[in-house]
Amino acid sequence: MKVYNFAAGPSMLAEEVKLTAQRDFLNYNGSGMSVTEMSHRSAVYENIHNEAQSLLRELMHIGDNYHVLFLQGGASMQFEAVPLNLLHTKADYVVTGNFAAKAASEAQKYGDVAVIASSKDKNHTYIPDVDKLVTREGADYLHITGNNTIFGTRYTKLPKVAAPLVADMSSMILSEEIDVNQFALIYAGAQKNIAPAGLTLVIVKKDIINRPQSICPTMLRYSTQAEANSLYNTPPCFAIYMAMLTFRWLKNMGGVPAIQKINEYKAGLLYDFIDNSSFYKNPVQKEYRSLMNVPFTTPSPELDKKFTAEAEKSGLVAIGGHRSVGGMRASIYNAMPVEGVKTLIDFMKKFELANR
Amino acid sequence: MKVYNFAAGPSMLAEEVKLTAQRDFLNYNGSGMSVTEMSHRSAVYENIHNEAQSLLRELMHIGDNYHVLFLQGGASMQFEAVPLNLLHTKADYVVTGNFAAKAASEAQKYGDVAVIASSKDKNHTYIPDVDKLVTREGADYLHITGNNTIFGTRYTKLPKVAAPLVADMSSMILSEEIDVNQFALIYAGAQKNIAPAGLTLVIVKKDIINRPQSICPTMLRYSTQAEANSLYNTPPCFAIYMAMLTFRWLKNMGGVPAIQKINEYKAGLLYDFIDNSSFYKNPVQKEYRSLMNVPFTTPSPELDKKFTAEAEKSGLVAIGGHRSVGGMRASIYNAMPVEGVKTLIDFMKKFELANR
Repeated sequence: MKVYNFAAGPSMLAEEVKLTAQRDFLNYNGSGMSVTEMSHRSAVYENIHNEAQSLLRELMHIGDNYHVLFLQGGASMQFEAVPLNLLHTKADYVVTGNFAAKAASEAQKYGDVAVIASSKDKNHTYIPDVDKLVTREGADYLHITGNNTIFGTRYTKLPKVAAPLVADMSSMILSEEIDVNQFALIYAGAQKNIAPAGLTLVIVKKDIINRPQSICPTMLRYSTQAEANSLYNTPPCFAIYMAMLTFRWLKNMGGVPAIQKINEYKAGLLYDFIDNSSFYKNPVQKEYRSLMNVPFTTPSPELDKKFTAEAEKSGLVAIGGHRSVGGMRASIYNAMPVEGVKTLIDFMKKFELANR
Repeated sequence: MKVYNFAAGPSMLAEEVKLTAQRDFLNYNGSGMSVTEMSHRSAVYENIHNEAQSLLRELMHIGDNYHVLFLQGGASMQFEAVPLNLLHTKADYVVTGNFAAKAASEAQKYGDVAVIASSKDKNHTYIPDVDKLVTREGADYLHITGNNTIFGTRYTKLPKVAAPLVADMSSMILSEEIDVNQFALIYAGAQKNIAPAGLTLVIVKKDIINRPQSICPTMLRYSTQAEANSLYNTPPCFAIYMAMLTFRWLKNMGGVPAIQKINEYKAGLLYDFIDNSSFYKNPVQKEYRSLMNVPFTTPSPELDKKFTAEAEKSGLVAIGGHRSVGGMRASIYNAMPVEGVKTLIDFMKKFELANR
């Protein structure tokens, strides 16, 4: 049975990427070694490392005034690394979901943190009006969560504020065009749109990383890994290799503009179907809808459970909503083919017929 | 050409482990998904996660009074996590090489740290007499480095001191029998003897992790991951899966006692050959010789370079010594077959004949 994996992350990797990784698993590029076992100091690995970096720079148009770092620990580690490196007096946060709230709450340990806007009043079904955002005088940065995995919202416009912008882009990186120059720092766990779990990307302006807090562990200092080209200690080589394969795949199909069109088409199919249905509902304000995560419900929690279980049996796996909100959530990252979304919609039609 | 990889880490994985990972790369256990892309909250992944843990417990005879944690960041991150979690007033360190020195130096940021013994006087070619070690009154722990990758030494006897024992076992874990009960905490980067880079194992007594320093980041608190069964956030799933395969492989061959015999045989072949040669030399005091890393030299640095280059061409790769010491180093971890060591010795014989 063909399986479509709608998990929020880790999530589907492109078929071509997996096939290449499998084909070369025992003998990469004639080295006689698997990428899972080669020295991170070897020339053959360094080529992978550097190609992955330069492809990401190319795909996202990242200038030389930014470092591209390959780290570990996921976005959760960055919730702490960001303030430990960038918070000198105070920092402002916008809370648009669970992870945004967690980022703000971790930062509170390291300085004066203010939540200057929140969408909690309407259960995070929208993004606060960015034109009304004002950061505090002297704020070191404003932290936003570009796409909210659990609630299915995303920023469709960026705040224009005095403070430098820091964004968690874990669930949207490389899914649509963004202007990196608008950001002081972007971070993203790779396990949603890029590679297996265990790799975290940080794109950071070179001139802001030299004043970490004195209590910042050496391993969490951006300067440590920047100076060592992310080879201060052993990096997660295999995940970086698979990131390189994903970047090649994206580049070959036309880069971010090309995948963005596909993503808009896929999300459009699903949202249109839901909006035209009286059975399924998506609670998010239309202008803030995520291209990557589409939450929806049937008329009852009991039917939601039935839907999730029957979908799983039909090869549409991991479509249950996050435990904190229930319902369903279709995560349709870059690697989810159009066919997967169409198969889901067919299943939704049949389920509605049988259960309405 | 058959390649034998003598890298200090990442390093060879067992052929059987790689073949299984390749075979199941696109479709693990009938799930229709690759382990590289499945949700860490799925039942299919949780089985992998839990089997890896329970196999490690079985192989190392780890009691219920210990947590087994699967973390990220490598031993370098543990150089900081250990003091951030366990250092309350003071801690003692034994310095037997570069990584031991780094562990001590990182810990100094977090409390009163004393180096109570060092082998630096003889360029780390021995282990200080453990029977003479005395930890300071009230020391929170004594930190040792079980095997010194760069210098090719290892503890062949454990210190009996008042303070709890903490050990970096990155380059020796599962290579020989140890009594876990002698330790308060053991940590190890997995990329030498277990799995691809990106996974760090921590085995820690349950009753000592509840007093982290207030500045310890949430993600570095052992209690955070212990309470969540190492699923506080997304773990490095694929590396954990390959660790599980390695643990199965070890168990099937008879566990640690069986691999220890093979390791002693492999190391014995190489040390005996070096000791009986007037061309090659190993500088380490015999009783402290590592089973995993065998450094050696020819009569001159020029010949060392020639050796390393010609070995590489013959498929004996990454045998150059660490940049800080030069010479050669054969890392012969669990996955290095006896045949690899014999092939190396044959090459050494030929090289000597051609260059003496």
